[in-house]
Amino acid sequence: MSSPNPSAPSPAPFTAEVYRARMAKAAESAAGAGLAGVIVAPGPDLVHLTGYRPVSTERLTLLVLRPGEEPVLVVPTLEAPDAAAAAGAPALALRDWTDGKDPYAVAAPLLDAQGRFGISDNAWAMHLLGLQRALPATSYTSLTEALPMLRAVKDAAELERLAAAGAAADATYEEILKVRFSGRRETDVAADLASLLRHFGHSQVDFTVVGSGPNGANPHHEAGERTIQRGDMVVLDFGGLKHGYGSDTSRTVHVGEPTAEEQRVHDIVREAQQAGCAAVRPGVACQEVDRAARAVITEFGYGERFIHRTGHGIGVTTHEPPYMIEGEEQPLVPGMCFSVEPGIYLPGRFGVRIEDIVTVTEDGGRRLNATARELAIVE
Amino acid sequence: MSSPNPSAPSPAPFTAEVYRARMAKAAESAAGAGLAGVIVAPGPDLVHLTGYRPVSTERLTLLVLRPGEEPVLVVPTLEAPDAAAAAGAPALALRDWTDGKDPYAVAAPLLDAQGRFGISDNAWAMHLLGLQRALPATSYTSLTEALPMLRAVKDAAELERLAAAGAAADATYEEILKVRFSGRRETDVAADLASLLRHFGHSQVDFTVVGSGPNGANPHHEAGERTIQRGDMVVLDFGGLKHGYGSDTSRTVHVGEPTAEEQRVHDIVREAQQAGCAAVRPGVACQEVDRAARAVITEFGYGERFIHRTGHGIGVTTHEPPYMIEGEEQPLVPGMCFSVEPGIYLPGRFGVRIEDIVTVTEDGGRRLNATARELAIVE
Repeated sequence: MSSPNPSAPSPAPFTAEVYRARMAKAAESAAGAGLAGVIVAPGPDLVHLTGYRPVSTERLTLLVLRPGEEPVLVVPTLEAPDAAAAAGAPALALRDWTDGKDPYAVAAPLLDAQGRFGISDNAWAMHLLGLQRALPATSYTSLTEALPMLRAVKDAAELERLAAAGAAADATYEEILKVRFSGRRETDVAADLASLLRHFGHSQVDFTVVGSGPNGANPHHEAGERTIQRGDMVVLDFGGLKHGYGSDTSRTVHVGEPTAEEQRVHDIVREAQQAGCAAVRPGVACQEVDRAARAVITEFGYGERFIHRTGHGIGVTTHEPPYMIEGEEQPLVPGMCFSVEPGIYLPGRFGVRIEDIVTVTEDGGRRLNATARELAIVE
Repeated sequence: MSSPNPSAPSPAPFTAEVYRARMAKAAESAAGAGLAGVIVAPGPDLVHLTGYRPVSTERLTLLVLRPGEEPVLVVPTLEAPDAAAAAGAPALALRDWTDGKDPYAVAAPLLDAQGRFGISDNAWAMHLLGLQRALPATSYTSLTEALPMLRAVKDAAELERLAAAGAAADATYEEILKVRFSGRRETDVAADLASLLRHFGHSQVDFTVVGSGPNGANPHHEAGERTIQRGDMVVLDFGGLKHGYGSDTSRTVHVGEPTAEEQRVHDIVREAQQAGCAAVRPGVACQEVDRAARAVITEFGYGERFIHRTGHGIGVTTHEPPYMIEGEEQPLVPGMCFSVEPGIYLPGRFGVRIEDIVTVTEDGGRRLNATARELAIVE
């Protein structure tokens, strides 16, 4: 196992200036969307804007961005040293609050009492209710609704990280083809996937789906105690974070020779995935990527068996806007990165899914996963 | 490493009847608190009430409990098979929604359009905003505010699990005393702690704090690249889940012989922790546990250096109500389980924290951690 080199040097960390620019842009975008500001909770928005990665808890941590004002991060006193050590900390002011005090009273003076704010999708309801109570005349909208493309367009340094994560996922797939499947449990192969992702530089493994036989027909099945058998189709879908950016790829393999029907269903999904990727270019609406992939599957009579959207964005998380889904009219912009992952699911029998991460280029799309999409035969 | 036996049989899983009773009790409690019902998001509330453990995402999953009505779980179609397989599923009705549809339109008919509801603290703000938009006349309060003790009182089967998790954490501490500290990085000792917790039956490791020397003065420091040195105080704070229930214990150790001041600060924290535990009995307000521990530290002149609350509840998560904090007047009830963990933090120098999980008995409190609280000397 040699490529990519797991001991390759880490990319240079993002500087405070990068975070300052990201925060300023977010505040400007908010103003452009008619908002008084942006309220950012622990999670991917905060990581993107400040590099700070606290755990989300009942203790309020909140970044407030207002156009033309210095960013302010409200933090629990006992987490203030960690916040101050974040790469983006020099670009913001810290305002701490101590256990037993009302944190919403600390946050309230930072907000326009009549304002409308975008708030991180994953902010805790408890904290939103606290703000609504402290400032009854404020109103809120989720960031995905208000500024859905806040993190969607990646710059060159981010693309480099996403490509590295994709290469590591590809190396993982190449290696997993060499392990034994038949006679082992799904969880055993899932453990191999996790270990390979880490070997190839992932610091975090988010999912290792091994859906064998009928389990493959449940697109959200993770991995269970089922023993994989000769004759099984096996959906593999795995990813996580490397240098802070995500990987997510799926291939479906077969234990021994497939039947004609299995091969045919796989061919249809492969053609659908190719059609989805081919639809990617600047200016095309997200929903067109979904339609392109779905049209192929529908044409072959399996439309009812493709029961999820075609894709989702990826960045500091493995699941974010933009979504490739009917109704999403957002046009594609160079630098966006997302999955293209159609599937066919035959309940009680088997499933097939093929997935690559694709980035929008100036004149089309470029895949960040490059392993073969033909149905691989494993032992 | 022999005790507790990591291959001991798992406790019998909770049955659908247990979940049915928990859901009915929650709905009744809601009615008693003047609420039209309870809205439960993925996370510890949902685990406690249904045994279902989905990942919290932008796709709406919501359990609706109303007094006298069958519980309904709203789930994305592609996660419906997982939801149906949960232990509590026979006690509820599933209502699924498909990508591209409006999930709030599916949830809205389940709610009284004028009602006030308790909602899980950690429900996504995006989902709360979706409900508020779909039903503008509804109002909401966080479950911690409305029904803070929903999960606080543990039954015998839960106490058995918490005791087993505590025993595993104790075994981990006994073993970590045998490893080398000086010359190794904090992250190395943290990795040892994680590996020991898993060896002793934890399925999930939530935190492995190793705060050596000045790092120990930051109570939320996890573990870093600092090399531990002879003469260091080292705060150890570790825990996770075993059989679905939490452990959380802290001990502070010293590499080689301590100075008189280090020993004295440790003695004060030990006395404070003892005083906090001794204050535990039914009917006493939570804040009295905090006051008892804090009084000792204040008496010795370190009051300003005890910068966090004294404790937090523990159950299906390692961090939940009840909180042992000034202002919390909730009386203790037999079966409640929480940490008692005072500390003293001397910035730039060192910290000390001692923590046990305590459960309220009929006539006092019982610790679920039993390792020595004297300052242990490590190599």
